[in-house]
Amino acid sequence: MNVTVLGSGSWGTTMASLAATRNPTLLWARRAETADEVTTRHTNERYLPGFPLSRQLRATVDLDEACAGADVLVVAVPSANFRAVLAEAAPSVRPWVPVVSLTKGLERGSLLRMTQVVEELLPGHPAAALTGPNLAREIMAGQAAASVLATKDPGVAAALQAVLTHRMFRVYRNHDVIGCEVGGALKNVIAIAAGIAEGLGVGDNTRAAVITRGLAELTRLGVAMGAQPQTLAGLAGMGDLIATCMSPLSRNRSVGEQLGRGRNLPDILAEMHMVAEGVGTAGLVLELADRWGVELPICREIDRVVRGDASPLEAYRGLVAPGHEADPG
Amino acid sequence: MNVTVLGSGSWGTTMASLAATRNPTLLWARRAETADEVTTRHTNERYLPGFPLSRQLRATVDLDEACAGADVLVVAVPSANFRAVLAEAAPSVRPWVPVVSLTKGLERGSLLRMTQVVEELLPGHPAAALTGPNLAREIMAGQAAASVLATKDPGVAAALQAVLTHRMFRVYRNHDVIGCEVGGALKNVIAIAAGIAEGLGVGDNTRAAVITRGLAELTRLGVAMGAQPQTLAGLAGMGDLIATCMSPLSRNRSVGEQLGRGRNLPDILAEMHMVAEGVGTAGLVLELADRWGVELPICREIDRVVRGDASPLEAYRGLVAPGHEADPG
Repeated sequence: MNVTVLGSGSWGTTMASLAATRNPTLLWARRAETADEVTTRHTNERYLPGFPLSRQLRATVDLDEACAGADVLVVAVPSANFRAVLAEAAPSVRPWVPVVSLTKGLERGSLLRMTQVVEELLPGHPAAALTGPNLAREIMAGQAAASVLATKDPGVAAALQAVLTHRMFRVYRNHDVIGCEVGGALKNVIAIAAGIAEGLGVGDNTRAAVITRGLAELTRLGVAMGAQPQTLAGLAGMGDLIATCMSPLSRNRSVGEQLGRGRNLPDILAEMHMVAEGVGTAGLVLELADRWGVELPICREIDRVVRGDASPLEAYRGLVAPGHEADPG
Repeated sequence: MNVTVLGSGSWGTTMASLAATRNPTLLWARRAETADEVTTRHTNERYLPGFPLSRQLRATVDLDEACAGADVLVVAVPSANFRAVLAEAAPSVRPWVPVVSLTKGLERGSLLRMTQVVEELLPGHPAAALTGPNLAREIMAGQAAASVLATKDPGVAAALQAVLTHRMFRVYRNHDVIGCEVGGALKNVIAIAAGIAEGLGVGDNTRAAVITRGLAELTRLGVAMGAQPQTLAGLAGMGDLIATCMSPLSRNRSVGEQLGRGRNLPDILAEMHMVAEGVGTAGLVLELADRWGVELPICREIDRVVRGDASPLEAYRGLVAPGHEADPG
């Protein structure tokens, strides 16, 4: 099985490097310097500084070449570029080839999940999402991690599971694609909230309460959209949420922490060369929530902060305001 | 309402100090020096070093005196002494007085929850449990926290809620006593597992997976015993679990972390002057699990470590061993 990964950010590069140890793998990078560096020096210092990549991994800037030989296509570009890159790639993708999204977000405007974008652009190709508590640098460091592959066809799931599993990186299957993708998108927003709580120094009692209510929001929206609640209680929901809210390596948590410390959003984002999906996802999630008729108070407060309509302290006060008498979850 | 708190550990002292700002409150301490220190110097340096207590709080070593005037009795002694202290107190407790347990554990031998012990010793007295993500030192520091008061009678619940609520310390009500107490007991065992993962340096991906599976164990046992799943997904389950697994202030997490770093259990416990309930709870939880016919793999591994039948590394390997193909939650 030839594997092609589109997108040379930290997560795309990590999965490409893992896959390359067992399957011929090609990484598509937008920048020629990155492609050269991956192929000749076996590093990607911009996104994974200090980590040696698989020496079998090759990279290219030629999207046609990247896709033409692929038996499995993995897409790891930010949600904002997902459709554009895949649309350009589509004519080169061979029939039946499954497409695995590594992207955790929603499409602006359409509010589509990434596998829905795949289904629009490549009808007839099985669409899958890989999600779960997967901090790229820990996986590059050889630490154990468990991931969830979400796709509807059990046969495709088993085949992809075999391709993506790699020693300490275990892949579980789940046919609840909606639950897995909604969990992956929303957890980035909740991570900003958890980061704000940390930056404000409100303590672990409150941080734990925010994360707990955050899981309730993931579950509420997911279930309204047709997800199974146990998906949100598993690795793709709670597991990913906790890793993202807890780890110093998480970008979205880090954005929140800096906001909580009083920095402003444009300055924070200008310094990052990676995308913190939660910043853009907050508003989209609220549109989805309106469509499905559910309340997401944490996402609403984070959207206000992101838009500049509330300070992190005001948002935090909104979240801990009294007025509930039963356990809010 | 006169409030009496039995037990001058960190959590009992914290709740007594909060209550004393609004209600005449008496703290029962076993040691005369502690009682004197609380009453005259308004500190409890052994358990809450550096924190000034309410100047209205008085303490006594006289259990009869402590109980005779109480309109609300709060019990905050370790599970191992819970029955003995309450049995000695019982004759002095006035009729109808509700008893609130702050203790998160099970009784050795009987496997009873603490409110069940209350019901045995003081039949006719409403029994309640106060639980949730409540790290005592954060509350003493004036940081916000939310707590859950679990009791069956709504009228008693509302009255106790008013007594226990205090500015930044908000109390929610939940009538699912089983869920609240099972969550509080099991989370201490899972926190040892999360601490071991941290001590072994396995990374946040795995730590998040352990906590996620831990919540599944809390829920599985709780539901088998008659709890409502949403209780375990709320502050009394997930909230408390996350705070305990995440915070450097948690004793059970700290025991696990030191185990993971290679220290042995007797040395760790000898250095603590507070009780880490999870150490004793692990084995009791397994007895309960057998009785109710549920599997609790994390609790089983932690019990093996506590008994000296497995090293932390062996326990960790047992937990991450492959063999599951669907999302294990």
